Amino acid sequence: MNFLEQRILRDGIVKEGNVLKVDSFLNHQMDIALLEEIGQEFHRRFADKKITKVLTIESSGIAIAYPVAKAFGVPLVFAKKAKSINIDGEVYAADVTSFTYQTNNQVIVSKKFLSADDHVLIIDDFLANGYALQGLISLVEAADATVEGLGIAIEKGFQEGGMRMRNLGYRLESLAIVDSMNARTGEIVFRAQD
Amino acid sequence: MNFLEQRILRDGIVKEGNVLKVDSFLNHQMDIALLEEIGQEFHRRFADKKITKVLTIESSGIAIAYPVAKAFGVPLVFAKKAKSINIDGEVYAADVTSFTYQTNNQVIVSKKFLSADDHVLIIDDFLANGYALQGLISLVEAADATVEGLGIAIEKGFQEGGMRMRNLGYRLESLAIVDSMNARTGEIVFRAQD
Repeated sequence: MNFLEQRILRDGIVKEGNVLKVDSFLNHQMDIALLEEIGQEFHRRFADKKITKVLTIESSGIAIAYPVAKAFGVPLVFAKKAKSINIDGEVYAADVTSFTYQTNNQVIVSKKFLSADDHVLIIDDFLANGYALQGLISLVEAADATVEGLGIAIEKGFQEGGMRMRNLGYRLESLAIVDSMNARTGEIVFRAQD
Repeated sequence: MNFLEQRILRDGIVKEGNVLKVDSFLNHQMDIALLEEIGQEFHRRFADKKITKVLTIESSGIAIAYPVAKAFGVPLVFAKKAKSINIDGEVYAADVTSFTYQTNNQVIVSKKFLSADDHVLIIDDFLANGYALQGLISLVEAADATVEGLGIAIEKGFQEGGMRMRNLGYRLESLAIVDSMNARTGEIVFRAQD
């Protein structure tokens, strides 16, 4: 069991509806020492890749992507969430449909900060159905840049996002994959990884 | 002229309406080496304070607050922006009124992450009219915690927020104070600081 899985077992809270609360250390209050370790771990896992940019999405992705960008010595870019707006030609935009919330939002990034020369590592805190991640991939592809990999802190292995990304051929590294949770007992089962 | 003022002169862009765009290095694409230097500088300026938490507000504050929290060795907490919502008793909430946009929003933080024992350094990227900062101060005071200081990357010295915070007795450190900008010539005038 790795350092993040251990921390989730210690401080994560399972709520009804397959909700895993990690807000005491990962996405509301943040333990910087843990985030630094996450940054080092993603750097180790993607050490074979020539990364030029780290891309994430506001808000909770930013603090996870920061130490990754630092470890690679490259700029950090965060995509912004927007209600469907008039795009002025200066941004790349991708639709992010949420079936859960029946909303249709966009993620946008300035064209200045992604180019065809970029080799991008995409980082986010959670992967569940994968809509946000698909939006980030679309932004990179709109810029004719290369998606070198996807780095996720916690993947909900019982939702389809991770499987879909792997089937599409993306190199996806999830530090913790939750295969099941039980809100009554608090039990969390992680998928065995190498 | 300090390192941030130099960077603003080099890469900042003045737009009509007293807009200073720093999105190539500070709040959309982010230069991690610059942010690390900002973290060290705030640590130096508030070295006399016993800080237990760094508080900021999503989204662009997070990447600036990260290296500050790291330098102090304390957790980073970010307040969330919310439309006026039913508060469930588990969060502190403060109104943030924007006269400019004629909107009434809230900032919220979980009660779990601010307590009366906390000595809080509040960090944000910009200070203009000070409404967001006032909201963050209200959250800290709602928790009976202590505001030890306010650290701002760029203060718009021609708007009233900075003066109001200083008049209220808060220790405010702004790394760059812009006293005037000219969108036609691109000129930026900084206030002389010690």
